[in-house]
Amino acid sequence: MEKPAYIHETELKVRDYECDLQGIVNNANYLHYMEHARHEFLLSAGKSFSDLHEQGIECVVRRIEIEYRVSLRSKDVAVCRLYLRREGPKYIFYQDIYRKADGRLCTRGKVECIVTIRGRVTRGDELESYFKAYLN
Amino acid sequence: MEKPAYIHETELKVRDYECDLQGIVNNANYLHYMEHARHEFLLSAGKSFSDLHEQGIECVVRRIEIEYRVSLRSKDVAVCRLYLRREGPKYIFYQDIYRKADGRLCTRGKVECIVTIRGRVTRGDELESYFKAYLN
Amino acid sequence: MEKPAYIHETELKVRDYECDLQGIVNNANYLHYMEHARHEFLLSAGKSFSDLHEQGIECVVRRIEIEYRVSLRSKDVAVCRLYLRREGPKYIFYQDIYRKADGRLCTRGKVECIVTIRGRVTRGDELESYFKAYLN
Amino acid sequence: MEKPAYIHETELKVRDYECDLQGIVNNANYLHYMEHARHEFLLSAGKSFSDLHEQGIECVVRRIEIEYRVSLRSKDVAVCRLYLRREGPKYIFYQDIYRKADGRLCTRGKVECIVTIRGRVTRGDELESYFKAYLN
Repeated sequence: MEKPAYIHETELKVRDYECDLQGIVNNANYLHYMEHARHEFLLSAGKSFSDLHEQGIECVVRRIEIEYRVSLRSKDVAVCRLYLRREGPKYIFYQDIYRKADGRLCTRGKVECIVTIRGRVTRGDELESYFKAYLN
Repeated sequence: MEKPAYIHETELKVRDYECDLQGIVNNANYLHYMEHARHEFLLSAGKSFSDLHEQGIECVVRRIEIEYRVSLRSKDVAVCRLYLRREGPKYIFYQDIYRKADGRLCTRGKVECIVTIRGRVTRGDELESYFKAYLN
Repeated sequence: MEKPAYIHETELKVRDYECDLQGIVNNANYLHYMEHARHEFLLSAGKSFSDLHEQGIECVVRRIEIEYRVSLRSKDVAVCRLYLRREGPKYIFYQDIYRKADGRLCTRGKVECIVTIRGRVTRGDELESYFKAYLN
Repeated sequence: MEKPAYIHETELKVRDYECDLQGIVNNANYLHYMEHARHEFLLSAGKSFSDLHEQGIECVVRRIEIEYRVSLRSKDVAVCRLYLRREGPKYIFYQDIYRKADGRLCTRGKVECIVTIRGRVTRGDELESYFKAYLN
């Protein structure tokens, strides 16, 4: 498999409260990691999630697919890498999480977002200027 | 669309800390709702997640697909309904969350789990006795 | 010790994701339980936290003391009981959490809140009408 | 006020899901920050929380006092500083969280822990060797 051309990377150290009684990071927390990684990417592209919110613009998640391969544990560092596609009104984030110590792929995610302005779904052009350089 | 034949239902009131700065339940928390609903179902079928864990048996999530349609908010009650299929070693939970006040479908989820014993993947038969009555 | 005259009670079943790798409810989650219990109390008194927020009125936590005596675990039900005092601008919630199965006291909490309107601290009178019946 | 002699520092960037509908970091999440900071400190002292757990040694929180002064928000970086005292069987962590941008003190916390071995409270000497250099 050809390696995807990631455009952004965020490192997050596992926090022990994120692990559940199985001793592994609880499945929901990977969505937290992925959200934080998207927002860090958005910041690096010049815009913050909270600023958008204050302008009435929301980037809303519509669909997530996530495949769990290797469990992260206490002391692990997650490397969250992503790239981005646009399909009409949808921005699709491909987000893979690796374990830093050995580079193993832990989860693969696909997150579809749409843009709303004051609650109404838009064609997504509001974020085009921020993301243009990253779409191909 | 024919209505699925749900086999279990759990009601969860939205807690305000589950809402993020958009004022809606954060996307990761639906995975928490769904996990709690599965574990409640498991309990109703005669077994607890923590007891299984103590016996070295883990029900591990391998893949989740979730579609977000309507956002839950403060004061809403989520009705989490599910049914179950088995495909070889995989147990597949179909989990839909409704808003109690008006019955609207908020999220649709599909959660694939496998069973491990002391870390090794099994053919899944360990849970068959608990789930048999619910599989069709 | 004389038993306090609680004015409100909320039951919460432990959710497995709230337990950490020690197998017990993580210490931060008791603050979540206590917050949810306060908001349920507020609702029962005729007002919601989110409605207040939309009016620019915030009930802000200033100080928490919490004593952990007995750990809650998977399958336990927490019974969150509270009573309320006012000291000038401060509303002080005394919040105790019991384990339902045997009535044991698990945590004792004291939560001091103040009221702000559009970011400015007030003398707290905005909430007096809702809480009056419960103060003594 | 004389500035305390902190012995450890951890930086944590606020994640948007940690903010609630008031737009500020939810009060329970500061306990998460403080726990992560303690575990990072423990790691720097040569021991991990999860390794201790596997040896049957638990560092259990018995009491927390936390004072909230300034709210952290989206995009803020929390600087978590701590120092440590021992009082008989109790290890007391004094944990202050500052906002990185302007150095303002956001929360002050005092966390009392005891040590248990396979569920029994000890005199705390098991951790003395790790903490000795930091106690005074």
